[in-house]
Amino acid sequence: MQGHTVTMLGTGLIGDFYTMTLHQPRGRDRVGVAYSRTEERGRAFSDRWEIPEHTTSMEDAINHPETDVVVVGLPNFLHEQAVALAVDAGKAVLVTKPLARDAAEAKRILDRVEAAGVFGGYLEDLVYTPKTLKAVDAVAGGAIGDVTWVRSRETHPGPHSAWFWDKEMAGGGAIVDLGCHCIEIIRSFVGKENRPVEVMTWADTLVHPIQAEDNAVVLLRFDSGALGQFEVSWTFRGGMDLRDEVAGTEGTIWLNHFLRTGYEMYSSGGGDGYVAEKLESTEGWLFPVGDEIGELGYTAMFTDMFEAIDSGRAPRETLYDGYVVNAVMDAAYRSAESRQWESVEMDWRGGPTPRIGKRGVTHDGHAVVKEETLPDGRRKLILSDKDTGSVFDLVTSD
Amino acid sequence: MQGHTVTMLGTGLIGDFYTMTLHQPRGRDRVGVAYSRTEERGRAFSDRWEIPEHTTSMEDAINHPETDVVVVGLPNFLHEQAVALAVDAGKAVLVTKPLARDAAEAKRILDRVEAAGVFGGYLEDLVYTPKTLKAVDAVAGGAIGDVTWVRSRETHPGPHSAWFWDKEMAGGGAIVDLGCHCIEIIRSFVGKENRPVEVMTWADTLVHPIQAEDNAVVLLRFDSGALGQFEVSWTFRGGMDLRDEVAGTEGTIWLNHFLRTGYEMYSSGGGDGYVAEKLESTEGWLFPVGDEIGELGYTAMFTDMFEAIDSGRAPRETLYDGYVVNAVMDAAYRSAESRQWESVEMDWRGGPTPRIGKRGVTHDGHAVVKEETLPDGRRKLILSDKDTGSVFDLVTSD
Amino acid sequence: MQGHTVTMLGTGLIGDFYTMTLHQPRGRDRVGVAYSRTEERGRAFSDRWEIPEHTTSMEDAINHPETDVVVVGLPNFLHEQAVALAVDAGKAVLVTKPLARDAAEAKRILDRVEAAGVFGGYLEDLVYTPKTLKAVDAVAGGAIGDVTWVRSRETHPGPHSAWFWDKEMAGGGAIVDLGCHCIEIIRSFVGKENRPVEVMTWADTLVHPIQAEDNAVVLLRFDSGALGQFEVSWTFRGGMDLRDEVAGTEGTIWLNHFLRTGYEMYSSGGGDGYVAEKLESTEGWLFPVGDEIGELGYTAMFTDMFEAIDSGRAPRETLYDGYVVNAVMDAAYRSAESRQWESVEMDWRGGPTPRIGKRGVTHDGHAVVKEETLPDGRRKLILSDKDTGSVFDLVTSD
Amino acid sequence: MQGHTVTMLGTGLIGDFYTMTLHQPRGRDRVGVAYSRTEERGRAFSDRWEIPEHTTSMEDAINHPETDVVVVGLPNFLHEQAVALAVDAGKAVLVTKPLARDAAEAKRILDRVEAAGVFGGYLEDLVYTPKTLKAVDAVAGGAIGDVTWVRSRETHPGPHSAWFWDKEMAGGGAIVDLGCHCIEIIRSFVGKENRPVEVMTWADTLVHPIQAEDNAVVLLRFDSGALGQFEVSWTFRGGMDLRDEVAGTEGTIWLNHFLRTGYEMYSSGGGDGYVAEKLESTEGWLFPVGDEIGELGYTAMFTDMFEAIDSGRAPRETLYDGYVVNAVMDAAYRSAESRQWESVEMDWRGGPTPRIGKRGVTHDGHAVVKEETLPDGRRKLILSDKDTGSVFDLVTSD
Repeated sequence: MQGHTVTMLGTGLIGDFYTMTLHQPRGRDRVGVAYSRTEERGRAFSDRWEIPEHTTSMEDAINHPETDVVVVGLPNFLHEQAVALAVDAGKAVLVTKPLARDAAEAKRILDRVEAAGVFGGYLEDLVYTPKTLKAVDAVAGGAIGDVTWVRSRETHPGPHSAWFWDKEMAGGGAIVDLGCHCIEIIRSFVGKENRPVEVMTWADTLVHPIQAEDNAVVLLRFDSGALGQFEVSWTFRGGMDLRDEVAGTEGTIWLNHFLRTGYEMYSSGGGDGYVAEKLESTEGWLFPVGDEIGELGYTAMFTDMFEAIDSGRAPRETLYDGYVVNAVMDAAYRSAESRQWESVEMDWRGGPTPRIGKRGVTHDGHAVVKEETLPDGRRKLILSDKDTGSVFDLVTSD
Repeated sequence: MQGHTVTMLGTGLIGDFYTMTLHQPRGRDRVGVAYSRTEERGRAFSDRWEIPEHTTSMEDAINHPETDVVVVGLPNFLHEQAVALAVDAGKAVLVTKPLARDAAEAKRILDRVEAAGVFGGYLEDLVYTPKTLKAVDAVAGGAIGDVTWVRSRETHPGPHSAWFWDKEMAGGGAIVDLGCHCIEIIRSFVGKENRPVEVMTWADTLVHPIQAEDNAVVLLRFDSGALGQFEVSWTFRGGMDLRDEVAGTEGTIWLNHFLRTGYEMYSSGGGDGYVAEKLESTEGWLFPVGDEIGELGYTAMFTDMFEAIDSGRAPRETLYDGYVVNAVMDAAYRSAESRQWESVEMDWRGGPTPRIGKRGVTHDGHAVVKEETLPDGRRKLILSDKDTGSVFDLVTSD
Repeated sequence: MQGHTVTMLGTGLIGDFYTMTLHQPRGRDRVGVAYSRTEERGRAFSDRWEIPEHTTSMEDAINHPETDVVVVGLPNFLHEQAVALAVDAGKAVLVTKPLARDAAEAKRILDRVEAAGVFGGYLEDLVYTPKTLKAVDAVAGGAIGDVTWVRSRETHPGPHSAWFWDKEMAGGGAIVDLGCHCIEIIRSFVGKENRPVEVMTWADTLVHPIQAEDNAVVLLRFDSGALGQFEVSWTFRGGMDLRDEVAGTEGTIWLNHFLRTGYEMYSSGGGDGYVAEKLESTEGWLFPVGDEIGELGYTAMFTDMFEAIDSGRAPRETLYDGYVVNAVMDAAYRSAESRQWESVEMDWRGGPTPRIGKRGVTHDGHAVVKEETLPDGRRKLILSDKDTGSVFDLVTSD
Repeated sequence: MQGHTVTMLGTGLIGDFYTMTLHQPRGRDRVGVAYSRTEERGRAFSDRWEIPEHTTSMEDAINHPETDVVVVGLPNFLHEQAVALAVDAGKAVLVTKPLARDAAEAKRILDRVEAAGVFGGYLEDLVYTPKTLKAVDAVAGGAIGDVTWVRSRETHPGPHSAWFWDKEMAGGGAIVDLGCHCIEIIRSFVGKENRPVEVMTWADTLVHPIQAEDNAVVLLRFDSGALGQFEVSWTFRGGMDLRDEVAGTEGTIWLNHFLRTGYEMYSSGGGDGYVAEKLESTEGWLFPVGDEIGELGYTAMFTDMFEAIDSGRAPRETLYDGYVVNAVMDAAYRSAESRQWESVEMDWRGGPTPRIGKRGVTHDGHAVVKEETLPDGRRKLILSDKDTGSVFDLVTSD
């Protein structure tokens, strides 16, 4: 029944979400010290979450004698440094998404953690939403047959902090901010052992006066032949649109995580005092989410991380997964430049995955394309001629 | 950071849900001993949930030296006895819904707990769903103005245990099983200080060979003039239908807790091995729920109870609330017999609630019924004549 | 290929909807003359719809030599007079809903039309929505077994013309305006041969300064035991809410006619010039309907009426149906006064309907309440004791 | 009030849909003669739709003395021949989608019709769905600002006739069958004057034993910078999935044409005799469409065509549009081979379209990336440095 005491690096929006999750009532785990780059924000954050200590020294925070887990909730360009200090301190280290700004940086982080033998976890929350976890289990259990296609869509009107919009500090734009979620969602559905082979990207800066892309669509081909597709945008209007779709040979899954989850409210604006959080407006039809940190996966994510630490197993999302994500994003940016499919370059730890099997049913040696039952009870077969490949009908009563 | 150790009375479906909730990873609270009426079920339950002890003696379970909270998850006819033993043991006691089979029994339970001064809580989970909690806050904050009408619908194809279907053991049928949820949901939206005044019931046994009702619709009028309406059924087809609707003078809320929550799956039945739980079928379009114990309110309910115990405050749902529910249900059954509105008879602890205010806008002394802006910019007023009450149009350019 | 030429009585909102329908491109039927109580509105209407003639004489309009069908789109208190004139002219007469202000008036209208032998049709559009027609066919075909319950909900923020709000001119409030739709929708699902037996009403004037009710809930019990339930309101916020739900022993149907039909739009308000019609707002999330006159049933309604005239058969909605609706509404208003169930008083032309059949499955003489398959393959029966009626479990491996 | 008499070429599924539309009750237009390649199907079709004549001579059908419009509802490889005969007969000719098997064939068809000066129309029904027409109007009116992205998805489990599956006869696979719809839907939203510039394709044959693609995703870049994206599949499970999404700088539109349109039905399978058409199953949750030919656009499409013929104007969808679609599909197939973006090669009749405008707001010369209001009322600006392009925060109280 022992809990963990956490060093929280970073006091921005993601630090709030993480701490709200860690400090859930009836929980065993707590933040013991917070690090912020400014004294003012560190104090406000500690007051807000009743954290006993805060500091502007990252080193002090990480080496705090009572904490055993370091959570890195900092801007992307500070991840490598923070992980290095945590490794030196011999503590478990959990890193927010994306792991790094590119695959080379990610690989250095991964190698350092693995060489030191400390626990590393990749804080990719959207793979842990309750809907996703249940759907991934259903797919793994065969409920929809072989996965042929996955769509993941993550769009909103743009992030709140300046550094996200700065290509240098973030490592990119909407692909780095949002696409990293999509890649892991897609991998979870097609199977993590299924190698992402190559990538094709459309990316453009359509609306905002920035150098990074504010819109992108990326196609991601897997070894099995399955296609992943993700759409990211910082110019979406209407709230935060988080949806996934999975197609399989025997079924279909549609998940909606935010704007249509069974809570619908119309407000004329004539009532008093209420401000709906995180919505673009406070009048008209609104679509709140019930338990936001639960629905977004934070609760299950930290549970998995701490249970993994306690039992000595790997978490669902490892730093290696974070590295794969960076490798896919690197290929995506190369493709945006080269305007053609680009291979995903990485040290792949898995093997090959067999091609999605075509149906093998035949009739008199001809492959059966489709089979229907006619109103009079006879069977209609659409057949592909074994010699010529031309397709023809056959109606039969057997 | 101290947790609670619980005596769990009852090892049926509700015992499973409660224990799954209490034993969530990273939690501080645990079941210490389980009581079942049969050794076999007690052992299976303890094995399933890794509970250290089990017994067939309700007294031993309640008086177990290491537990400080007693959860009553027994059939309705055993509640009074269980609460009495818990009170004698001086322990906090949390009672599943409905509190009792009728208001008289509920009142005896309430009086006994209050006289002894032990903590009492009413385990009405559906008031604690994340969507309901957020919506109740929005309503309390004025987002939809004055509440005029609430609909709560709870239907499914019928319960799993025999005693539910037995009018004597349960105290009634679908109203007792499901309507108790609806009453508290409705009260939460119209305001708990708003007295439920009178009740009108339609109830019938349409499908099942039982003496209790398998379908009912109940209208519940409140002191403010607001109307509550609930529909319960043990003959619904398609899964479990849990929906609430709230109308206010400035807005509308629609909640869907189960069949349409953003997870949609089609399965051809051609895949392997997967069984979707709690659905009527495993093929075709299915609508699972992500985090079932979260979405059904169990998580937030036990959190509120334990936080209330720890801080010495009352929980959101008290045994007094349970008593009010029983009083409303008693009136509902009387109305089903008398075929007219029946007063809710109870010791009401609150005061009166003012009538929902009609709009007081006038024009030249005539009450304004409606106001529209015409395409040419002029205002069209629909007015009620101050003397005759007849209604007429007036187009004005002021 | 011959079309009909129509006398249109009334040039208000319903006249617009009717004429828009009759004048659909590629149609054969046209309005030949329009009657309005004022010259100004008559001219504007005729200009709007390219109608060759208009008049302020109801008699002249009805006796126009080129028209063969009279459509009554007037306020309720003018229906009887208009129908009398149309009957005298020997023309087919189609009357908007509700047929009359009460059943006595409706009966006089019905008798006069039937005595004269002219064609009479009741313009109840919402029974003719494409979804309703298809769903009624599915129910009639047995797709959901015996119907046990129907909910019909019709609510919006209140009508546009003054006379609707005047109890004397309209014959009532929201029940007369909206409930008449609900009654026919419910009758269509439970079967029109199924006698509406008795009615229970809650009605109140919660928001508007009028004498008529602005909110009501009505329960309607049928001879088969099925329950109809309808909710009407002139205080709903968020648009126009038209939903129906049908429960049967083997299935469920949910219909949504307006606010959630597959067209969802978010508008920031920052765009130019567009005004979304019939919505409460023009910003935020909006839910337009595609083909409004089609979705609301007007197209199929006039098609049925004209096809019925041409082929000499009765339409789906007859004046007798309109009379039944008035009889149900009369009972509803009596119940609102008496506060108990009131019989529907009318000349019923049908016979009795058998009671919804309870399931007759038995096991060893005990009625089977429910049957489940356990994980180990055995069957669990919940049985009602043939002698005592008490309910018990039985697990069996046969 | 004169109608048109139509020569219907083809008696397959599309011929049924077209004729059901043309023969709607109260309509003025009728099929006068049907052509089928076999006498048997021609007779069955004519009996089914009460068509006075049928023939196996395409020439006789086209030259029938009483028809003035020829509808080409034949397999793709017969379009050119049929149009040539119709042109020779001097009749209006309406051609089903896709216009041809490739752009060269389409251009020959277009040139021949234009040279002869007969009326030509392209029967692209899905642009004419009531939802699409209304949404296109909203977009054209500025309701969502500049369009940045359109997604169109058309998937089902595969067509019913053999020739669709034969690459030679059809000219391709799912792209040709379904993508042609998507291209016109996308063009309608981004603006038809907006040139489709280049195309990137992923296409694969994942499930069926055929040579054509059974799955594809195509990206289509327009002159304005907007991106079109379409997904087509012959392996989708769960019915027919027709959805469109439009993102603009000031809003969002989501359209669902088939599986979620407000009609939801659960059937246990225990009822009698009903077969739900066009659904993958007849049990479980089903999602029928109300007025199928209306919802799929057939009604509005033929109305537009006939009104265009009668008034001498161009229809919404011309043969030139059909040619553009073929040119886009040719580029799509080239891209599937070359694995890079391919230009759309065609005789473009329009001019250039300006780039989607970036927001031009500045503060002290720095471009404003985002602006938020803080809880204390101050403004937070995210600015892009005018010199370096780096992004920074500024909190201001002006």
